[in-house]
Amino acid sequence: MAIVTISILEGRDHATKARLMQRLTDAVVETLGAEPRQVRVLVNEVRDGDYAVGGTPVFLNPDP
Amino acid sequence: MAIVTISILEGRDHATKARLMQRLTDAVVETLGAEPRQVRVLVNEVRDGDYAVGGTPVFLNPDP
Amino acid sequence: MAIVTISILEGRDHATKARLMQRLTDAVVETLGAEPRQVRVLVNEVRDGDYAVGGTPVFLNPDP
Amino acid sequence: MAIVTISILEGRDHATKARLMQRLTDAVVETLGAEPRQVRVLVNEVRDGDYAVGGTPVFLNPDP
Amino acid sequence: MAIVTISILEGRDHATKARLMQRLTDAVVETLGAEPRQVRVLVNEVRDGDYAVGGTPVFLNPDP
Amino acid sequence: MAIVTISILEGRDHATKARLMQRLTDAVVETLGAEPRQVRVLVNEVRDGDYAVGGTPVFLNPDP
Repeated sequence: MAIVTISILEGRDHATKARLMQRLTDAVVETLGAEPRQVRVLVNEVRDGDYAVGGTPVFLNPDP
Repeated sequence: MAIVTISILEGRDHATKARLMQRLTDAVVETLGAEPRQVRVLVNEVRDGDYAVGGTPVFLNPDP
Repeated sequence: MAIVTISILEGRDHATKARLMQRLTDAVVETLGAEPRQVRVLVNEVRDGDYAVGGTPVFLNPDP
Repeated sequence: MAIVTISILEGRDHATKARLMQRLTDAVVETLGAEPRQVRVLVNEVRDGDYAVGGTPVFLNPDP
Repeated sequence: MAIVTISILEGRDHATKARLMQRLTDAVVETLGAEPRQVRVLVNEVRDGDYAVGGTPVFLNPDP
Repeated sequence: MAIVTISILEGRDHATKARLMQRLTDAVVETLGAEPRQVRVLVNEVRDGDYAVGGTPVFLNPDP
Protein backbone atom coordinates (compact mmCIF):
# COMPACT_ATOMS: atom_id res chain seq x y z
CA MET A 1 0.00 0.00 0.00
CA ALA A 2 1.24 3.47 -0.84
CA ILE A 3 -0.54 6.78 -1.07
CA VAL A 4 1.46 9.54 -2.72
CA THR A 5 0.38 13.17 -2.56
CA ILE A 6 2.29 15.72 -4.57
CA SER A 7 1.72 19.45 -4.17
CA ILE A 8 2.68 21.55 -7.18
CA LEU A 9 1.69 24.99 -8.38
CA GLU A 10 -1.34 24.81 -10.66
CA GLY A 11 -1.03 25.19 -14.41
CA ARG A 12 0.25 21.84 -15.72
CA ASP A 13 -1.76 20.16 -18.47
CA HIS A 14 -3.38 16.73 -18.17
CA ALA A 15 -0.67 14.97 -20.22
CA THR A 16 2.13 16.26 -17.99
CA LYS A 17 0.28 15.32 -14.81
CA ALA A 18 -0.49 11.88 -16.24
CA ARG A 19 3.23 11.29 -16.97
CA LEU A 20 4.09 12.55 -13.49
CA MET A 21 1.63 10.17 -11.80
CA GLN A 22 2.85 7.24 -13.91
CA ARG A 23 6.49 7.94 -13.06
CA LEU A 24 5.78 8.34 -9.34
CA THR A 25 3.90 5.05 -9.40
CA ASP A 26 6.78 3.32 -11.18
CA ALA A 27 9.17 4.65 -8.55
CA VAL A 28 7.10 3.10 -5.77
CA VAL A 29 6.51 -0.21 -7.55
CA GLU A 30 10.17 -0.70 -8.44
CA THR A 31 11.57 0.40 -5.09
CA LEU A 32 9.12 -1.23 -2.68
CA GLY A 33 7.89 -4.12 -4.82
CA ALA A 34 4.34 -2.86 -4.38
CA GLU A 35 1.50 -4.10 -6.53
CA PRO A 36 0.65 -1.27 -9.00
CA ARG A 37 -3.04 -1.30 -8.07
CA GLN A 38 -2.08 -0.59 -4.45
CA VAL A 39 -0.30 2.62 -5.41
CA ARG A 40 -2.49 5.68 -5.50
CA VAL A 41 -1.30 9.16 -6.45
CA LEU A 42 -3.02 12.46 -5.79
CA VAL A 43 -1.93 15.73 -7.37
CA ASN A 44 -2.69 18.71 -5.17
CA GLU A 45 -2.63 21.85 -7.29
CA VAL A 46 -1.68 24.86 -5.20
CA ARG A 47 -2.94 28.26 -6.33
CA ASP A 48 -0.39 30.72 -7.59
CA GLY A 49 0.86 32.76 -4.63
CA ASP A 50 -0.32 30.22 -2.03
CA TYR A 51 3.16 28.79 -1.49
CA ALA A 52 6.04 30.56 0.24
CA VAL A 53 9.75 29.88 0.65
CA GLY A 54 11.36 31.75 3.52
CA GLY A 55 8.13 33.72 3.95
CA THR A 56 8.03 35.01 0.37
CA PRO A 57 5.21 33.84 -1.91
CA VAL A 58 6.21 32.14 -5.14
CA PHE A 59 4.31 33.24 -8.24
CA LEU A 60 4.52 31.34 -11.50
CA ASN A 61 2.58 34.10 -13.22
CA PRO A 62 3.82 37.36 -11.68
CA ASP A 63 1.33 39.61 -13.51
CA PRO A 64 -1.98 37.79 -13.60
CA MET B 1 -10.02 15.71 19.21
CA ALA B 2 -10.28 14.40 15.68
CA ILE B 3 -9.51 15.98 12.34
CA VAL B 4 -10.85 14.10 9.35
CA THR B 5 -9.76 14.91 5.80
CA ILE B 6 -11.47 13.17 2.96
CA SER B 7 -10.21 13.45 -0.62
CA ILE B 8 -12.81 12.83 -3.30
CA LEU B 9 -13.10 13.76 -6.95
CA GLU B 10 -14.86 17.10 -7.36
CA GLY B 11 -18.43 17.33 -8.53
CA ARG B 12 -20.60 16.46 -5.50
CA ASP B 13 -23.29 18.97 -4.52
CA HIS B 14 -23.49 20.72 -1.16
CA ALA B 15 -26.25 18.46 0.19
CA THR B 16 -24.28 15.28 -0.51
CA LYS B 17 -21.13 16.70 1.05
CA ALA B 18 -23.10 17.87 4.08
CA ARG B 19 -24.51 14.36 4.60
CA LEU B 20 -21.03 12.91 4.16
CA MET B 21 -19.51 15.22 6.77
CA GLN B 22 -22.35 14.50 9.20
CA ARG B 23 -21.96 10.74 8.80
CA LEU B 24 -18.17 10.87 9.20
CA THR B 25 -18.63 12.95 12.35
CA ASP B 26 -21.17 10.47 13.75
CA ALA B 27 -18.72 7.63 13.07
CA VAL B 28 -16.04 9.36 15.13
CA VAL B 29 -18.36 10.42 17.96
CA GLU B 30 -19.92 6.97 18.35
CA THR B 31 -16.66 5.03 18.04
CA LEU B 32 -14.30 7.18 20.10
CA GLY B 33 -16.75 8.89 22.43
CA ALA B 34 -15.52 12.25 21.17
CA GLU B 35 -17.40 15.46 21.83
CA PRO B 36 -19.07 16.47 18.51
CA ARG B 37 -17.59 20.00 18.63
CA GLN B 38 -14.10 18.47 18.76
CA VAL B 39 -14.63 16.65 15.46
CA ARG B 40 -13.72 18.64 12.39
CA VAL B 41 -14.10 17.39 8.84
CA LEU B 42 -12.48 18.80 5.70
CA VAL B 43 -13.50 17.76 2.21
CA ASN B 44 -10.62 18.00 -0.25
CA GLU B 45 -12.03 18.06 -3.77
CA VAL B 46 -9.52 16.64 -6.21
CA ARG B 47 -9.68 17.83 -9.81
CA ASP B 48 -10.80 15.34 -12.42
CA GLY B 49 -7.70 13.57 -13.72
CA ASP B 50 -5.54 14.49 -10.70
CA TYR B 51 -5.87 11.06 -9.10
CA ALA B 52 -4.30 7.85 -10.38
CA VAL B 53 -4.63 4.18 -9.54
CA GLY B 54 -1.70 2.04 -10.70
CA GLY B 55 -0.37 5.05 -12.60
CA THR B 56 -3.53 5.60 -14.66
CA PRO B 57 -5.54 8.79 -14.09
CA VAL B 58 -9.17 8.38 -13.09
CA PHE B 59 -11.63 10.66 -14.89
CA LEU B 60 -15.21 11.06 -13.73
CA ASN B 61 -15.98 13.07 -16.84
CA PRO B 62 -13.97 11.48 -19.65
CA ASP B 63 -14.87 14.11 -22.29
CA PRO B 64 -14.75 17.50 -20.60
CA MET C 1 -12.42 6.89 -4.92
CA ALA C 2 -12.02 8.25 -1.44
CA ILE C 3 -9.03 8.59 0.81
CA VAL C 4 -9.85 9.39 4.42
CA THR C 5 -7.18 10.51 6.87
CA ILE C 6 -8.12 10.88 10.51
CA SER C 7 -5.77 12.45 13.05
CA ILE C 8 -6.37 11.44 16.64
CA LEU C 9 -4.23 11.44 19.75
CA GLU C 10 -2.35 8.17 20.12
CA GLY C 11 -3.41 5.55 22.63
CA ARG C 12 -6.42 3.77 21.10
CA ASP C 13 -6.23 -0.02 20.83
CA HIS C 14 -6.42 -1.98 17.58
CA ALA C 15 -10.05 -3.01 18.09
CA THR C 16 -11.23 0.58 18.53
CA LYS C 17 -9.28 1.78 15.53
CA ALA C 18 -10.64 -1.10 13.44
CA ARG C 19 -14.22 -0.15 14.37
CA LEU C 20 -13.47 3.48 13.58
CA MET C 21 -12.07 2.63 10.14
CA GLN C 22 -15.05 0.39 9.37
CA ARG C 23 -17.54 3.06 10.38
CA LEU C 24 -15.78 5.77 8.38
CA THR C 25 -15.76 3.48 5.36
CA ASP C 26 -19.47 2.75 5.77
CA ALA C 27 -20.17 6.48 5.94
CA VAL C 28 -18.43 7.02 2.61
CA VAL C 29 -19.96 4.00 0.89
CA GLU C 30 -23.51 4.82 1.97
CA THR C 31 -23.29 8.54 1.27
CA LEU C 32 -21.38 8.59 -2.01
CA GLY C 33 -22.26 5.17 -3.39
CA ALA C 34 -18.57 4.36 -3.56
CA GLU C 35 -17.31 0.82 -4.04
CA PRO C 36 -15.91 -0.34 -0.65
CA ARG C 37 -12.56 -1.37 -2.14
CA GLN C 38 -12.09 2.19 -3.41
CA VAL C 39 -12.34 3.61 0.10
CA ARG C 40 -9.06 3.75 1.98
CA VAL C 41 -8.68 5.02 5.53
CA LEU C 42 -5.49 6.09 7.28
CA VAL C 43 -5.28 6.70 11.02
CA ASN C 44 -2.66 9.30 11.88
CA GLU C 45 -1.78 8.97 15.56
CA VAL C 46 -0.62 12.27 16.95
CA ARG C 47 1.75 12.21 19.91
CA ASP C 48 0.42 13.45 23.21
CA GLY C 49 1.13 17.17 23.43
CA ASP C 50 1.58 17.62 19.66
CA TYR C 51 -1.88 19.09 19.14
CA ALA C 52 -3.01 22.51 20.30
CA VAL C 53 -6.34 24.32 20.51
CA GLY C 54 -6.07 28.09 20.75
CA GLY C 55 -2.31 27.69 21.19
CA THR C 56 -2.55 25.40 24.21
CA PRO C 57 -1.32 21.80 23.87
CA VAL C 58 -3.82 19.07 24.64
CA PHE C 59 -2.52 16.21 26.78
CA LEU C 60 -4.43 12.98 27.19
CA ASN C 61 -1.97 11.86 29.81
CA PRO C 62 -1.06 14.97 31.82
CA ASP C 63 1.59 13.27 33.97
CA PRO C 64 3.60 10.98 31.72
CA MET D 1 13.39 21.82 7.80
CA ALA D 2 9.76 22.67 8.30
CA ILE D 3 6.76 22.32 6.04
CA VAL D 4 3.68 24.19 7.20
CA THR D 5 0.27 23.59 5.67
CA ILE D 6 -2.58 25.81 6.69
CA SER D 7 -6.17 25.08 5.68
CA ILE D 8 -8.49 28.09 5.65
CA LEU D 9 -11.76 28.84 3.94
CA GLU D 10 -11.17 30.44 0.54
CA GLY D 11 -11.70 34.14 -0.02
CA ARG D 12 -8.61 35.89 1.41
CA ASP D 13 -6.71 38.25 -0.88
CA HIS D 14 -3.07 37.83 -1.88
CA ALA D 15 -1.82 40.49 0.54
CA THR D 16 -3.46 38.84 3.55
CA LYS D 17 -2.17 35.41 2.60
CA ALA D 18 1.33 36.84 2.04
CA ARG D 19 1.29 38.36 5.55
CA LEU D 20 0.02 35.08 6.97
CA MET D 21 2.79 33.05 5.31
CA GLN D 22 5.44 35.55 6.46
CA ARG D 23 4.19 35.43 10.06
CA LEU D 24 4.00 31.64 10.12
CA THR D 25 7.56 31.49 8.76
CA ASP D 26 8.78 33.94 11.42
CA ALA D 27 7.15 31.79 14.12
CA VAL D 28 9.08 28.74 12.94
CA VAL D 29 12.39 30.55 12.47
CA GLU D 30 12.28 32.22 15.88
CA THR D 31 11.07 29.18 17.80
CA LEU D 32 13.13 26.41 16.21
CA GLY D 33 16.12 28.40 14.99
CA ALA D 34 15.42 27.16 11.46
CA GLU D 35 17.06 28.73 8.42
CA PRO D 36 14.31 30.79 6.67
CA ARG D 37 14.95 29.12 3.29
CA GLN D 38 14.18 25.75 4.90
CA VAL D 39 10.71 26.86 5.94
CA ARG D 40 8.03 26.30 3.34
CA VAL D 41 4.40 27.28 3.78
CA LEU D 42 1.42 26.06 1.78
CA VAL D 43 -2.02 27.65 2.00
CA ASN D 44 -4.79 25.16 1.32
CA GLU D 45 -7.95 27.06 0.46
CA VAL D 46 -11.01 25.05 1.38
CA ARG D 47 -14.20 25.67 -0.57
CA ASP D 48 -17.06 27.30 1.26
CA GLY D 49 -19.18 24.52 2.79
CA ASP D 50 -16.43 21.90 2.60
CA TYR D 51 -15.55 22.19 6.29
CA ALA D 52 -17.69 21.01 9.18
CA VAL D 53 -17.61 21.42 12.95
CA GLY D 54 -19.63 18.85 14.86
CA GLY D 55 -21.03 17.65 11.55
CA THR D 56 -22.42 21.03 10.47
CA PRO D 57 -20.86 22.74 7.43
CA VAL D 58 -19.43 26.20 7.96
CA PHE D 59 -20.29 28.76 5.30
CA LEU D 60 -18.51 32.10 5.09
CA ASN D 61 -20.97 33.24 2.44
CA PRO D 62 -24.36 31.80 3.43
CA ASP D 63 -26.19 32.98 0.30
CA PRO D 64 -23.87 32.46 -2.67
CA MET E 1 -11.37 28.29 11.11
CA ALA E 2 -7.77 27.31 10.54
CA ILE E 3 -6.00 23.99 10.77
CA VAL E 4 -2.22 24.22 10.75
CA THR E 5 -0.03 21.15 10.27
CA ILE E 6 3.70 21.51 10.66
CA SER E 7 6.10 18.73 9.73
CA ILE E 8 9.47 18.83 11.49
CA LEU E 9 12.12 16.26 12.21
CA GLU E 10 11.49 14.55 15.54
CA GLY E 11 13.53 15.39 18.63
CA ARG E 12 12.14 18.69 19.97
CA ASP E 13 11.07 18.78 23.60
CA HIS E 14 7.54 19.55 24.79
CA ALA E 15 8.39 23.14 25.81
CA THR E 16 9.76 24.00 22.38
CA LYS E 17 6.81 22.45 20.59
CA ALA E 18 4.40 24.28 22.93
CA ARG E 19 6.06 27.63 22.10
CA LEU E 20 5.95 26.78 18.41
CA MET E 21 2.23 25.95 18.51
CA GLN E 22 1.47 29.14 20.47
CA ARG E 23 3.41 31.30 18.01
CA LEU E 24 1.77 29.70 14.98
CA THR E 25 -1.62 30.27 16.57
CA ASP E 26 -0.80 33.92 17.27
CA ALA E 27 0.26 34.36 13.64
CA VAL E 28 -3.12 33.10 12.44
CA VAL E 29 -5.17 35.04 14.98
CA GLU E 30 -3.39 38.34 14.31
CA THR E 31 -3.32 38.01 10.53
CA LEU E 32 -6.78 36.61 9.83
CA GLY E 33 -8.68 37.88 12.84
CA ALA E 34 -9.59 34.31 13.71
CA GLU E 35 -11.00 33.34 17.08
CA PRO E 36 -8.20 31.54 18.98
CA ARG E 37 -10.38 28.50 19.76
CA GLN E 38 -10.93 28.02 16.03
CA VAL E 39 -7.20 27.66 15.40
CA ARG E 40 -5.89 24.13 15.73
CA VAL E 41 -2.25 23.16 15.30
CA LEU E 42 -0.85 19.68 14.71
CA VAL E 43 2.87 18.89 14.92
CA ASN E 44 3.83 16.02 12.64
CA GLU E 45 7.17 14.63 13.79
CA VAL E 46 9.04 13.06 10.90
CA ARG E 47 11.51 10.30 11.68
CA ASP E 48 15.18 11.04 11.15
CA GLY E 49 16.04 10.10 7.58
CA ASP E 50 12.42 10.17 6.36
CA TYR E 51 12.78 13.58 4.71
CA ALA E 52 14.79 14.32 1.58
CA VAL E 53 15.89 17.47 -0.21
CA GLY E 54 16.86 16.94 -3.85
CA GLY E 55 16.62 13.19 -3.25
CA THR E 56 19.10 13.12 -0.38
CA PRO E 57 17.82 12.17 3.09
CA VAL E 58 18.38 14.69 5.87
CA PHE E 59 19.62 13.25 9.16
CA LEU E 60 19.64 15.29 12.34
CA ASN E 61 21.55 12.53 14.11
CA PRO E 62 23.98 11.11 11.53
CA ASP E 63 25.26 8.30 13.76
CA PRO E 64 22.30 6.89 15.68
CA MET F 1 8.43 23.59 -6.27
CA ALA F 2 7.12 20.17 -5.34
CA ILE F 3 6.36 18.59 -2.00
CA VAL F 4 5.80 14.85 -2.12
CA THR F 5 4.34 12.95 0.81
CA ILE F 6 4.22 9.18 0.64
CA SER F 7 2.38 7.11 3.23
CA ILE F 8 3.57 3.52 3.59
CA LEU F 9 3.30 0.94 6.32
CA GLU F 10 6.25 1.17 8.70
CA GLY F 11 9.09 -1.35 8.62
CA ARG F 12 11.28 -0.36 5.65
CA ASP F 13 14.98 0.17 6.33
CA HIS F 14 16.85 3.43 5.74
CA ALA F 15 18.45 2.22 2.49
CA THR F 16 15.11 1.32 0.93
CA LYS F 17 13.52 4.59 1.96
CA ALA F 18 16.53 6.51 0.62
CA ARG F 19 16.18 4.79 -2.77
CA LEU F 20 12.46 5.50 -2.74
CA MET F 21 12.96 9.20 -2.02
CA GLN F 22 15.65 9.46 -4.72
CA ARG F 23 13.43 7.79 -7.31
CA LEU F 24 10.41 9.95 -6.44
CA THR F 25 12.59 13.04 -6.75
CA ASP F 26 13.92 11.90 -10.14
CA ALA F 27 10.34 11.36 -11.33
CA VAL F 28 9.44 14.95 -10.46
CA VAL F 29 12.62 16.48 -11.85
CA GLU F 30 12.40 14.64 -15.16
CA THR F 31 8.68 15.14 -15.65
CA LEU F 32 8.23 18.73 -14.53
CA GLY F 33 11.70 20.10 -15.19
CA ALA F 34 11.94 21.09 -11.52
CA GLU F 35 15.21 22.02 -9.88
CA PRO F 36 16.23 19.08 -7.65
CA ARG F 37 16.69 21.32 -4.57
CA GLN F 38 13.06 22.44 -4.92
CA VAL F 39 11.79 18.88 -4.60
CA ARG F 40 11.17 17.73 -1.07
CA VAL F 41 9.97 14.27 -0.11
CA LEU F 42 8.46 13.18 3.19
CA VAL F 43 7.92 9.53 4.11
CA ASN F 44 4.96 9.09 6.44
CA GLU F 45 5.25 5.70 8.14
CA VAL F 46 1.84 4.39 9.07
CA ARG F 47 1.61 2.00 12.00
CA ASP F 48 0.68 -1.58 11.27
CA GLY F 49 -3.10 -1.85 11.44
CA ASP F 50 -3.69 1.89 11.00
CA TYR F 51 -4.62 1.57 7.33
CA ALA F 52 -7.79 0.01 5.98
CA VAL F 53 -9.04 -1.01 2.54
CA GLY F 54 -12.80 -1.39 2.30
CA GLY F 55 -12.99 -1.02 6.08
CA THR F 56 -10.62 -3.89 6.85
CA PRO F 57 -7.26 -3.09 8.50
CA VAL F 58 -4.15 -4.19 6.66
CA PHE F 59 -1.47 -5.82 8.80
CA LEU F 60 2.04 -6.44 7.53
CA ASN F 61 2.82 -8.39 10.66
CA PRO F 62 -0.36 -10.31 11.54
CA ASP F 63 0.95 -11.75 14.83
CA PRO F 64 2.83 -8.97 16.61
